Amino acid sequence: MKDIQSQHDHRRISIEKVGVKEISYPITVLDKAHHHQHSVATVNMSVNLPHHFKGTHMSRFIEILNRFHGEINLRSFHLILEEMKEKLEAQQAHMEVKFPYFLQRKTPNKTGLLREYSCKMHGAYDSEDDLTLEFRVPIAPPGMEQTGEGLPKSLGHWGNADICLRFRHFIWIEDLIEMVEEVTSHNLQWPTSQPRTSQKTLSVEELAKELGRRLNNHPAISWFSVTVENLSEGFSTFATLEGPQ
Amino acid sequence: MKDIQSQHDHRRISIEKVGVKEISYPITVLDKAHHHQHSVATVNMSVNLPHHFKGTHMSRFIEILNRFHGEINLRSFHLILEEMKEKLEAQQAHMEVKFPYFLQRKTPNKTGLLREYSCKMHGAYDSEDDLTLEFRVPIAPPGMEQTGEGLPKSLGHWGNADICLRFRHFIWIEDLIEMVEEVTSHNLQWPTSQPRTSQKTLSVEELAKELGRRLNNHPAISWFSVTVENLSEGFSTFATLEGPQ
Amino acid sequence: MKDIQSQHDHRRISIEKVGVKEISYPITVLDKAHHHQHSVATVNMSVNLPHHFKGTHMSRFIEILNRFHGEINLRSFHLILEEMKEKLEAQQAHMEVKFPYFLQRKTPNKTGLLREYSCKMHGAYDSEDDLTLEFRVPIAPPGMEQTGEGLPKSLGHWGNADICLRFRHFIWIEDLIEMVEEVTSHNLQWPTSQPRTSQKTLSVEELAKELGRRLNNHPAISWFSVTVENLSEGFSTFATLEGPQ
Amino acid sequence: MKDIQSQHDHRRISIEKVGVKEISYPITVLDKAHHHQHSVATVNMSVNLPHHFKGTHMSRFIEILNRFHGEINLRSFHLILEEMKEKLEAQQAHMEVKFPYFLQRKTPNKTGLLREYSCKMHGAYDSEDDLTLEFRVPIAPPGMEQTGEGLPKSLGHWGNADICLRFRHFIWIEDLIEMVEEVTSHNLQWPTSQPRTSQKTLSVEELAKELGRRLNNHPAISWFSVTVENLSEGFSTFATLEGPQ
Repeated sequence: MKDIQSQHDHRRISIEKVGVKEISYPITVLDKAHHHQHSVATVNMSVNLPHHFKGTHMSRFIEILNRFHGEINLRSFHLILEEMKEKLEAQQAHMEVKFPYFLQRKTPNKTGLLREYSCKMHGAYDSEDDLTLEFRVPIAPPGMEQTGEGLPKSLGHWGNADICLRFRHFIWIEDLIEMVEEVTSHNLQWPTSQPRTSQKTLSVEELAKELGRRLNNHPAISWFSVTVENLSEGFSTFATLEGPQ
Repeated sequence: MKDIQSQHDHRRISIEKVGVKEISYPITVLDKAHHHQHSVATVNMSVNLPHHFKGTHMSRFIEILNRFHGEINLRSFHLILEEMKEKLEAQQAHMEVKFPYFLQRKTPNKTGLLREYSCKMHGAYDSEDDLTLEFRVPIAPPGMEQTGEGLPKSLGHWGNADICLRFRHFIWIEDLIEMVEEVTSHNLQWPTSQPRTSQKTLSVEELAKELGRRLNNHPAISWFSVTVENLSEGFSTFATLEGPQ
Repeated sequence: MKDIQSQHDHRRISIEKVGVKEISYPITVLDKAHHHQHSVATVNMSVNLPHHFKGTHMSRFIEILNRFHGEINLRSFHLILEEMKEKLEAQQAHMEVKFPYFLQRKTPNKTGLLREYSCKMHGAYDSEDDLTLEFRVPIAPPGMEQTGEGLPKSLGHWGNADICLRFRHFIWIEDLIEMVEEVTSHNLQWPTSQPRTSQKTLSVEELAKELGRRLNNHPAISWFSVTVENLSEGFSTFATLEGPQ
Repeated sequence: MKDIQSQHDHRRISIEKVGVKEISYPITVLDKAHHHQHSVATVNMSVNLPHHFKGTHMSRFIEILNRFHGEINLRSFHLILEEMKEKLEAQQAHMEVKFPYFLQRKTPNKTGLLREYSCKMHGAYDSEDDLTLEFRVPIAPPGMEQTGEGLPKSLGHWGNADICLRFRHFIWIEDLIEMVEEVTSHNLQWPTSQPRTSQKTLSVEELAKELGRRLNNHPAISWFSVTVENLSEGFSTFATLEGPQ
């Protein structure tokens, strides 16, 4: 082994990326209703490297993360990426933060349910920032019957809308989720409430297009992708589009 | 450490169970339509132990499993358990085998879909065998609209029925799944097809009771439990019962 | 269908348990160092039922959970269970709360890492409370080499210790985790640091017994179970014991 | 809603991709030792679409998959993609097939263990095929002590090597896995067997580079990426490189 090793050593095989993955970390994020919200994130951090890197600095990623005490927002995201790039003398820094985000949804009988939305922020920093936000909105078609408490009885977990965005300026994720739910709840009432007369067919393509039309016109959004998936069959059918178109 | 260790050594702290878990293993199981079916299982094996056990025999579990070449049926289950009990000189032997089971489902447009059903067999052997079979049947309410291919468009993944059984004599799992699907598809048409007149409410309780009635009367079943869960709300609501009652 | 239904209706098939599962919910728990800690839990709630239950009250579980604003401790656990039993007119109430718990671990180079420990509290309330706490401590054997930062380089994720407890009186989970890590780190240094002279073999059985000895003597613990698993082989080998013995 | 709908309808928002995801499907793949091997795959299929697509043909994906009875190899992969492109009148067809692959590993005491390797084949077809193969090799450092059966006792699950390849011509996956395990087992003996004299540090970077050197010289491989991850710390540290360099 040693011979092979030494004979290989002068060949220039270079690492392209090093980092840390799947760090479970408590965070606080901005919240439209309560100023901030606590969550638990899964964090990935990595840097793109020059040839002369010595790989003994993995704990620096954790040090940088610790310095920000789990405060995750547009400003801290930029600062963390900048510090990663500098401290690790890298060309490019990446960070991905996945977390459940909770919103209080009103229900007819005032129960109020904290609904969970999976979110993911991804940032890359080279000479400029490139930040994307991804979130998932579950789609459940409300039926005609009422539950004992006056709730429309849902007919199942129809699927999910996955939205990914780049921003021109700040928007509340609450407003984006509301926009998506307006589309999905409207479209999904058709098959049950107007069974005979409706010409529309509920489909992943139609829902994706309708979401695309809304995002196309949004002044704060510079790029987006939409994937709508339907879980009804034991597997998922899906349609994807990107924009602006 | 050594002092603590030696001072503790004569105390009778005894292990109660040792085993292997999460072994991924290719298996063949009996299939009503094709004689047998290939699948990939996750296998857990364990034994309950007397005081004098020396724990250096973990590889014996694997040896015994290998000897049966992945053939899993009522007879091999018994033989494996018996050999575990004997070779490991144990009072009791346990094995759990989880696997996806596939059935060809007919669809109106003749596409034919291999639908996956999660199955789990669990066996315990002391002086007698105790074998249980568990399986999950997904519940999806068919809607009124037709897909392009003449399929009723499903309105989402409503939930699951989890059935666990002890047998008096052999039954095909195909027949059990069919019995469950007869109940779940019938009951789930009500809210959409008879929106105004139906008195029945679709609920986990009613579905669990109806499944309980069917299993109560089955001559081959000596014990059962039924859990019906509804996933519509982003979490699950469930009802459980056991029988015969 | 209706005929079958009505003919079945007078048979006494009764539901035994109803509830909600897999509710994602932000919580606060007690923390020895910082007074309290935020986390995100997965909550299951259920009640055992009398015959006359009408299954239209699933949202009451959520209402009760909301009323406590996610504060999870011994006192609130009791109050939630009591309210579930009363509001749902049940014989018995159950709640299970799973959450990641974070502890700051000291490292030689002062980096400090928030380490995640999976925790689960389970409570049942009938006429008395029965509360159990479960937690998982990852086991990683420290090697002889040092990392660039003076850390002993870990030789891999050897396995996990899963501890489940019933209490006589309150103990900090921090102290329990420390006790477990004292055992697992000590025992695991043997095979590498004293390769030739050590008589001890690293095994799931020996670690489980050593943990059992410590828990056996603990004045605050009325019952415990210990499972140690080793993940080295692509599957897991494990040993389990219960006590006090 | 109708008004909004009709006013939007003439806007050209177009779907870019449609498909099916997470189909559980029994397959057979080629096996160097036994001619073929049964496994259970998770299949994703999708096509890139022109503007005039009508989205009612999702079941065609399943029809095409069924026609090949789960035989997955280089030739069938090409034929499935070609048929998808043609039947769905698409510009590009994609298929991804993930499955556990089993190899019999020799052990000193002849037990023989079926070890599981996660594999993923991905194919894209436009005017030409582009096929990649990905597989994961678990890394476990053998210790110095012997188990009761004469096996070197593993010191834990150190991490994984994820290899992704494009081929010039056919190679057995068995030979690729062997090549990877030769590197990982050699390098990982150092820290324990030569604790004082070895200059080498076990690291994700060194292992990735050594794997890169081997793949760099392989005549059958036209492109590769290597990611080595170390799971020791409760999260993962990783290094990635691509080649040929």
